[in-house]
Amino acid sequence: MAQLVKDIVSRDVDFGAWYTSVIKKADLVDYSTTKGSMIIRPYGYAIWEKMVAVLDAEFKKSGHQNLQMPMLIPESLLNVEKDHVAGFAPEVAWVTQGGEETLEERLCVRPTSEVLFCDHFKQIIKSYRDLPLLYNQWCTIVRWEKTTRPFLRSREILWQEGHTMHETSEEAKQETKRMFHIYEKFQREYLALPVIVGKKTEKEKFAGAESTYTIEAMMYNGYALQNGTSHYFGQNFAKAFGIQFLNREQKLEYPYQTSWGVTTRMIGAVIMTHSDDYGLVLPPKIAPVLVNLIPIGKDTDILEKIQEIAKMLRENDITTTIDQSEKSPGFKFAESEVKGYPIRLELGPRDYENHTVTLVRRDTLEKVTVSFEEIVMEVKKLLEEIQNHLYQRALERRNAMLYEAKTYQEFKQIAQEKPGFIKINWCGKTSCEEKIKADTTLKSRCILEDEVAEGTCPCCGEKALYKVYFGKQY
Amino acid sequence: MAQLVKDIVSRDVDFGAWYTSVIKKADLVDYSTTKGSMIIRPYGYAIWEKMVAVLDAEFKKSGHQNLQMPMLIPESLLNVEKDHVAGFAPEVAWVTQGGEETLEERLCVRPTSEVLFCDHFKQIIKSYRDLPLLYNQWCTIVRWEKTTRPFLRSREILWQEGHTMHETSEEAKQETKRMFHIYEKFQREYLALPVIVGKKTEKEKFAGAESTYTIEAMMYNGYALQNGTSHYFGQNFAKAFGIQFLNREQKLEYPYQTSWGVTTRMIGAVIMTHSDDYGLVLPPKIAPVLVNLIPIGKDTDILEKIQEIAKMLRENDITTTIDQSEKSPGFKFAESEVKGYPIRLELGPRDYENHTVTLVRRDTLEKVTVSFEEIVMEVKKLLEEIQNHLYQRALERRNAMLYEAKTYQEFKQIAQEKPGFIKINWCGKTSCEEKIKADTTLKSRCILEDEVAEGTCPCCGEKALYKVYFGKQY
Repeated sequence: MAQLVKDIVSRDVDFGAWYTSVIKKADLVDYSTTKGSMIIRPYGYAIWEKMVAVLDAEFKKSGHQNLQMPMLIPESLLNVEKDHVAGFAPEVAWVTQGGEETLEERLCVRPTSEVLFCDHFKQIIKSYRDLPLLYNQWCTIVRWEKTTRPFLRSREILWQEGHTMHETSEEAKQETKRMFHIYEKFQREYLALPVIVGKKTEKEKFAGAESTYTIEAMMYNGYALQNGTSHYFGQNFAKAFGIQFLNREQKLEYPYQTSWGVTTRMIGAVIMTHSDDYGLVLPPKIAPVLVNLIPIGKDTDILEKIQEIAKMLRENDITTTIDQSEKSPGFKFAESEVKGYPIRLELGPRDYENHTVTLVRRDTLEKVTVSFEEIVMEVKKLLEEIQNHLYQRALERRNAMLYEAKTYQEFKQIAQEKPGFIKINWCGKTSCEEKIKADTTLKSRCILEDEVAEGTCPCCGEKALYKVYFGKQY
Repeated sequence: MAQLVKDIVSRDVDFGAWYTSVIKKADLVDYSTTKGSMIIRPYGYAIWEKMVAVLDAEFKKSGHQNLQMPMLIPESLLNVEKDHVAGFAPEVAWVTQGGEETLEERLCVRPTSEVLFCDHFKQIIKSYRDLPLLYNQWCTIVRWEKTTRPFLRSREILWQEGHTMHETSEEAKQETKRMFHIYEKFQREYLALPVIVGKKTEKEKFAGAESTYTIEAMMYNGYALQNGTSHYFGQNFAKAFGIQFLNREQKLEYPYQTSWGVTTRMIGAVIMTHSDDYGLVLPPKIAPVLVNLIPIGKDTDILEKIQEIAKMLRENDITTTIDQSEKSPGFKFAESEVKGYPIRLELGPRDYENHTVTLVRRDTLEKVTVSFEEIVMEVKKLLEEIQNHLYQRALERRNAMLYEAKTYQEFKQIAQEKPGFIKINWCGKTSCEEKIKADTTLKSRCILEDEVAEGTCPCCGEKALYKVYFGKQY
């Protein structure tokens, strides 16, 4: 046990090193010769598949259709919308050669696909009868990041990008909100992540958008992780691309657009929120394997009983794995903890005699002894408890790191001394946002739309228009 | 009706133009500004999703795990295996710039991922206990094709690539066969495609492989479509990459490798095999929508009944769509045929009075009148019949275009006069294969492993070693 665990630095000592150990030791990722890109190993990819299955069903239930766009974008197409290209051109990878031939026009590997969708929308939207168009795509994107960290910031990212077109501005705005609500609900119910939803400032919004809504999660160390965004574009791209439809009054009009996306970064958020010094901790709803069964000793009766219990659990839709390796029980227990199986089931000779097993829940490491007959019921109960407990624990920790500052002095002091998010009044000026960043390294997380600002901006003293959270970010 | 259909050139007049019309009019694909790449529209992508679901379950059932590798490969990594790089380097897209910076080393967009998997295998394979490794990845690849055709040959391709490593040569060879059997069964049972499975010649095998097995489908026009491959690599890549494991005798040994893949090309094969001059025809097992319900007239009772029938069908796991547009019945019928819904259900005033509906099966366009009570039963029966009939029809057509030639004269004559595959004895020399191609444009499809060659090669007169099919290809 000591062997496996001793290599994991405590998350309270060095959070970055701890994170790297956990993702490596739990076999979630491996580094690749392709610099800045990661290999998502089967155990990590299985988590992504679980996330995809739930979200994809939600998207379809809400009327969205999947499709597939090209992955390469001609430079001239990327250049159509001015703000967009200004935001993305500095961080894209360029294909300049195809086979032996030097291309006449460079192609970038998609960093996001708004321009490709608009190019297509222009072909297929003729009338209000063609609207709304509710599209989604699961794919890989590339952004040429300088510093990378597996799941959180990578040159290649697995994600989904929704792209929709609407008849009216209201409908498009509703779509923007509907989707961040789906994200928020998914992250709460499945990932056990408490998140704050709000609007990005002008400075932080998506390149080319009219407004961007963000899902802000807080990691164990108080850092913010932008864990999903939903954009309202108004008619910006439609005008740039000349997309028009014949409206109900038989007049040509530009449609209203949205886009929204979440990425494999969600896996990083889950790890940085729930895991501990023993390794990975996964919410049962997205854990690829729920119960790890460990036979103690080599007694045939015990091995047979373990197989029987595993079968019984699988028949109740509870995924299992059995550790029948030659390793010592202590090593197996540690490995089970590193891998973050929500429940470990131990069966040794004494248990066998008593017709009982020991269940160990991964979140608290608490043990409980249950009879053979009670296993399925108890496992189901525990899984539910773990799921709920992870959310509550994360919520309490997060809430304990939410601050509000009245004066700039107070703000700077909290920023320096305490990890977490700090709420302040804000005048709305980018200059104040930039000054705050320069003074404290904190960036605006989001504008809280449901809260009313009173008084003045602590930075410049002018009238406050918004309540905003600031925080350090990944 | 005429309007929609008249734009589809008959497949007997111009097969290429017919294919292009069908895929466009059925809303399967659209062309993109990114030259050589296609947009797979929702209806086309839904077919792919159905294929993926079945295959993915098969792969998992047979013990394979999904993961995700980077999409970019450093040039030096691509260069490790000599035959492989020679085969692929001429047709890859190169990323040479990242953001503002010119890269020190070019990266190619993966044309296939053997080298990435080997690079990873080298890190994780230590002992025979780590074997077999049975991996699969769903992703997009890029091959810089000069001439492209949607689904059949595109610069960007959606596919799956399986990559496995084994302790023994036998086990790896078995894996190669197991996977092409899974492909063959899937194509027969789901895509209703009769296929011929065999071994590729030295000239046609995968770059770097020891042997390649291929799934050869025959299109309506007699052309061959390579519709899946499974490769056995022996220790070629393992040696090139220095991948070794400690075997059961505690000695270092190179593991044995396979890879196998199918692509969105399967959608093209389905279209070119089953569709007709009225548009798309889809095997029910991969059709995104099984029944298209068309109310005739605007009678509220009829509209309500249609909704009720649709609900009843959905409750029986039969997917539906209702055409409630303003278009004329004739236009709706034509559209239903263009889109290839396996069954069209019509309900007009007279039907309603008689408590009946009309069912039209897409494969034969035959009509049958059934009572309200019989709908579900009859639809289920028809779907099964359509699935079987499509396979039988394709099989008979294919068999009628299989020839065998004894002399080179006979071979050349059939090649010139009749579309299809021609079987001949072959000496095994690449020079004969090349001469045949030069004389007739026909390429070898596959060596028939279960058939014994007798006599001489009709091309050179030397002793025949194999029976081989030749054919024109896409």
